[in-house]
Parts: sequence; structure tokens; C-alpha cells
Amino acid sequence: MLIVKKFGGSSVADKEHIFNVARRCIEDYNKGHDVVVVLSAMGKTTDGLLAKAHEINPHPSKRELDMLLVTGEQVSVSLMAMAMGALGVQAISLNAAQIQMQTTSAYGNSRLKRIDTERVRNELDARKIVIVTGFQGINKYDDMTTLGRGGSDTTAVALAAVLHADLCEIYTDVDGVYTADPRIVPNARKMDEVTYDEMLEFASLGAKVLHNRSVEMAKKYGVHLIVRSSLNTSEGTIVKEEVKMEKMLVSGVAADRNTARISVMGVKNEPGIAFKLFQHLARHNINVDIILQSVGRHGTKDIAFTVARTDLEEALEIIKRHMDSLGAQTLESEEKVAKLSIIGAGMTSNPGVAAKMFEALASVGVNIKMISTSEIRITVLIDEADVERAMRSVHDAFSLGD
Amino acid sequence: MLIVKKFGGSSVADKEHIFNVARRCIEDYNKGHDVVVVLSAMGKTTDGLLAKAHEINPHPSKRELDMLLVTGEQVSVSLMAMAMGALGVQAISLNAAQIQMQTTSAYGNSRLKRIDTERVRNELDARKIVIVTGFQGINKYDDMTTLGRGGSDTTAVALAAVLHADLCEIYTDVDGVYTADPRIVPNARKMDEVTYDEMLEFASLGAKVLHNRSVEMAKKYGVHLIVRSSLNTSEGTIVKEEVKMEKMLVSGVAADRNTARISVMGVKNEPGIAFKLFQHLARHNINVDIILQSVGRHGTKDIAFTVARTDLEEALEIIKRHMDSLGAQTLESEEKVAKLSIIGAGMTSNPGVAAKMFEALASVGVNIKMISTSEIRITVLIDEADVERAMRSVHDAFSLGD
Repeated sequence: MLIVKKFGGSSVADKEHIFNVARRCIEDYNKGHDVVVVLSAMGKTTDGLLAKAHEINPHPSKRELDMLLVTGEQVSVSLMAMAMGALGVQAISLNAAQIQMQTTSAYGNSRLKRIDTERVRNELDARKIVIVTGFQGINKYDDMTTLGRGGSDTTAVALAAVLHADLCEIYTDVDGVYTADPRIVPNARKMDEVTYDEMLEFASLGAKVLHNRSVEMAKKYGVHLIVRSSLNTSEGTIVKEEVKMEKMLVSGVAADRNTARISVMGVKNEPGIAFKLFQHLARHNINVDIILQSVGRHGTKDIAFTVARTDLEEALEIIKRHMDSLGAQTLESEEKVAKLSIIGAGMTSNPGVAAKMFEALASVGVNIKMISTSEIRITVLIDEADVERAMRSVHDAFSLGD
Repeated sequence: MLIVKKFGGSSVADKEHIFNVARRCIEDYNKGHDVVVVLSAMGKTTDGLLAKAHEINPHPSKRELDMLLVTGEQVSVSLMAMAMGALGVQAISLNAAQIQMQTTSAYGNSRLKRIDTERVRNELDARKIVIVTGFQGINKYDDMTTLGRGGSDTTAVALAAVLHADLCEIYTDVDGVYTADPRIVPNARKMDEVTYDEMLEFASLGAKVLHNRSVEMAKKYGVHLIVRSSLNTSEGTIVKEEVKMEKMLVSGVAADRNTARISVMGVKNEPGIAFKLFQHLARHNINVDIILQSVGRHGTKDIAFTVARTDLEEALEIIKRHMDSLGAQTLESEEKVAKLSIIGAGMTSNPGVAAKMFEALASVGVNIKMISTSEIRITVLIDEADVERAMRSVHDAFSLGD
């Protein structure tokens, strides 16, 4: 079996952790498996390098920033190879240039294009454990690039795809994907499996177990993905296309507090006005989420939508500059809101699901401000203060707990 | 003019030093010159990485050690590019893989074979300052290698050679090459110029201004080399093939305290015995320097020679194991000795030079234990306690001071 294993920065933060990971990989290797390991930079290395860069230049060239940052993973992989060597196992570290991990040319947020598998295959054939730098690539100029936040997950899934790996294990500091945040819902249950689509919804709702792009890629190439803990040997959560028949309608509940609501009222009721508003925001890379448009007074329109709370200030400034051209009269915002979502591939054809969710919220006196749905998700916007009560009530209503 | 400038680790140890170097390079750039900068790792970075490695594995794979160490220079060059960017100048950092700095496959102590100049030339043509990682290369497996001690000097000289640079400046923390160590000989004088051969002798005697291999390469390719201070703008010392006619017979005096003497006595007087002795040492990479062979009692031979003091213990152990096969009777060693040398391209044809040196030593009561000469050097082995007195007397005798 060929297994790709990815470990994050906290899993290789120091000598003890490095040896812990090394032993885990060697265990599989000793069973006769081919093992490819993808590593992030140790602990807070990347933050440290960023601080150094900004000390020198508050706005460093993105190309040079990537040149700097990629050293972090190279340190991790070489030390890991030495640790495995100390444990008597042949291992070899490889960086992005050595396996021609080709990306788009954009620095800081590149996309993978192609990976040359020859070197990795040769080293595996020589019965070595292959240790690859996560998060990084090279572009057509032979310059170093980085894949952006969560990039090491993407590296691991991409390697699993091109190597036709039997398994891609993403190690995190949690046991897997839960039906809800166990810190809020004490009887939350670890799920044995979720579909790629469900995982995408969980990921985009801030359940930080897997990066979105890695899940998209896993889905596209049918990579057999497992999210599991680096701290214990529990089974983890399998992410795959189909899940077993008896699966429940709703898989889990997730909340996202990085949310704020903006209301632009009294907008001219002309075609294309809403489009203009969102175009202004898009130009500044501000993502808009739930949108509600309603008829206002005197033939005008009211447009309400949510943005990430971290984008609120900038979004308001942009809109203020365009109030006249939008013909808008008033601008309001609300910062202390949160999104609460239920996710489940099984809910598509079940109209009763939404009703049950709303009933659960009503039963604990939680007011719904906005609603948004997709095929496998129902999201409501509520007061941030209500999040925990709401989550527990919904979790109970769908009997998701142990 | 195309200028290659090399700065060591202490010159880029922190933000202040980095900007200092950046400004120096920009000064030349603003005069219209093409500037290539070669950097070592910041301050004690390499030592720090080595310590990390040995914490993980006391005997790490040399390949992995190089993979780890090369990150040090990559951090330096990217930060330098950011600093130049902050000063409004276009600069680009390049690592060994990006300029195909090809070396032999040996890790830890590789030799340069070939450099691809295309990328560097393109960036220079785009009027960028090009900043290259010193000390490192890639071998035929596309693996990272390092050039060993002083490797960044070699990188700079090699780049100057392949780029046909007009000048290669090696920046150090001293003003240039001195007639003697100014800490010992207060009136020692900075030399304006030395020949490649003289520089080689100074380098091998521990005057740590330039690495031997870089001088050899500079000589081979006729690279116009200057050793100068990174702390001030004084002229430095020019290293070249021919020096001006009025040059003195003796250029300078140098001492090497990393020396010990070994005497193997009562060795069988058979052909090849001495060869066997030195072969045993060579197998363990122990270099032997001054050798003295004399006839002992009862038709045996006595062989005395010097080794680096840091090799003494190992050398003695090796010889002890072979005393019988060498037919040797006694083994003695002396740790507190030092080599004192006078160096000068002009002394070749002047038999009076040696006599003058010995007279200067006798006049201050310094006893000579062994003597070794080359075309441009006379070396004597003396008690370490005599070094400073001897150096001052010899320096005076040849009127080398100010």
C-alpha cells in the first residue's frame, strides 16, 4: 500500500514531536507499505520568518517572501530524515524544486499545476521513506512559490493523487471531524465518515481540520482521505464520495463567528445596482456571503448581506464612497452575529429538515435574522450571544450526540 | 563594470548590518555598475542549524545536513532583496538550484563544476542587483550540497570567473591582509597588494581572511580579487598575479598555533615504512605537515612530523595501533608548539632571507625545532610560548612595519 501522511507544524515543533512522527511513519513502513510524508514548517517558524521580513520591509516583495518562507519546511523535512536515520530507517527529504512541484506563477497563493513523480517513485522503490516539503512549489521561472493558507494539506492530497496513493492521512490535533465543536456541545460525536461535499461545508465554516482546496482536489481525483489525530491512534474520520446507507440526514452542526451583517437601504430599484455594489467589494477581495434583497419604501430596495467580520470596516468604507452612485440612502451594520449551519448530504430530499432546525432554534428563543441554503447545508444568521445555546439545541434535535 | 561582492555571516547578522550591506551595494549600482552579491548565512545561523541536527541525530546523513544548512543562506539572500526593495532598488535573490551551481556529488565538502550564467545575466540585464546564496550547490542528483569551510568565498570567485567580472570584492571584518597579526605586532602594516601564491600561504597559515580554494580558483581564472573591510571604506588588499617591481622580498609574517609535533622513533630502516605510516594517517583524513627524517640508533630511523593540534589525539591512537607493524620503538609528542612563517614571492632567488630569519629568532633566544620551505615561504617550528616575541623580531628584521 502507498500511504501519504501529512503532519502540521505543531506535530514537528520540537525534537520529541519529530521523533513521535518519525515512529508513526516507520510503523507503517515496517508493515511493508510505501510511505510519503508531507510536513509543514516547525511550530511557529513561518510566523517568525514573516516577522523578520516585515522588520526589514513592511511591504516585502511577494517573490522574496516566498523565497524566505520555503526555508521553514526544508528545515522540517531534513530534520525528520535525520530522526528516521537515527531510528535506523532509510529516509530522504525532497523540496519542491527537487520533485518539480509546478505551480502557477502567483506568489503567496499559488495553485498546483503538475508534479513530477519520477524522483519520489525512485526513492520509494529504493525502500526509502520520502519526506516532502508541504506548502511550496516552483513556478515557470524556477522561482519558489507558496500555496497559501493550509497549503500543506493540498500538497499531501496532490501527491496522493499523482502517485495514485491508496490512502492520504491528514494528521491534526483533533481526533477527526465532529458533529459539533466538542467545547460547545459536550456530547458531540466524532463522525466515522463524511462525504467530500460535507467536508467542504465544514471546512468553509471554520472547522479548521482540513483546507478547502485540499478537499476539492481530493474529490476531483477521488483521493481516499482520512483526518486523524497525531496524538493518539484512534480511527479518525474518512472523507469519501459515498457514505453508508444508514447515514443520518444531518451530519453535524457548525458555527462561524467571523461574520458581520451589512444593510444598504433605500437603493435605487434599477437593474444592475446590486451587481455594482458587489463588484465594488469584489474588487477589494471582499467575499460576500448570505444575501437578502427586499422591497423598501417608495419603490426602493434594501440589500442586506454578510461579510467576514475582519472585512467589515473596509467593506463599509468602500460602500460609503459609492452611496451616491448606488442611490442608497442609509447604511447599517451589525457586528455581533454568527452563522449556524447544519450539514448533511442526506438532507437534499428531505423538506422536514429545515423545519426541524427552525423549531429547535425557536424552542430556545433564538431569533433567525437571515437564511441561506445549499443542497447539503442550511445556514441561519443569529446573534452571536445565542450561538452556543442554539448549537446544543439543534445538535440535540437531530440526535447527533453519543 | 560588473562587480561581485561577497559578505560573510557577521556582515548580515541583523537588520542594521543587512541595511549597511544593502547600501554599499546600491552605491555601486547607482554608479551604473552591474552588481552581484554573494552572502553567507546570518551570524551564527549555521552553528544553530548544526546544533539542531545533532540534537536529533549525533551522526546525521551528510546529504540531509546539507539540505538543512542551505536554508541559512536562503534566508540571508531573501531578506537582503527585501532590504534593497525597501531602499527602492530592484533586487532578486537566487539560490544554488536556480543558477544551476553544479558541484561534485560529495556532501559537506563539494567542489564546484559548472555554473549556468543565463539567469544571472538576464536579471542583471533587467538592471536588478542579483543576490546569490554562498556556500552551496547542487549535484547531479539535484540534491543540495555545501562547499565546506569558507565556501562562500569560493562561490564569489567562481561567479566572478564565469561572469567575467571586472572585480571580486571579499568583505571581511579586517581592512585587508597584514604583514603580521596586528594584535601581536602593533606596527604591522596593511599590504596594498599580494600575489595569489602569497595569499595562498597566508590563508593556509590561518590568516583567516580568504579561503584557500577561492584563492586557487582566482589564480586559475585570473579573477581580480580585493580583500576589504565591511566596516569602513579603506582600500583593502588587492590579490593578483604580478605585483609592482619595488615589492619587498618578504611580504609578511604569519603564525599557526594549531600545531603539534609527533616523533616516532626507532623505526625499521626499510623502504616504504615512512610511506605506510603516513598512509595510515591519510586514511583518517589527518594531514601531515613538516616532516623530518633522521637516522636513529642501531640502524633505525626517527620520523618526526607535525599535525594539526586538533588531530593529535586521533593521530597518536592510530600510530599506537601500528607500532608493531612499523617496527617502531617509541612514540613521543609535543603539544605546545607553533609554526612561524615568512611569506614573499620575492624570496625565491634570495638565499640570504632564511639566514636573516634565523638570526632574528636567535637574537631573542627562540629555538628552532624544525624547518620547512617552499618557493615563497620559510616556516619554522618553535615553542608556542615564543610565538609573539619571535613574530615581532622577524617582522622588525625585515622592516615590514610602518
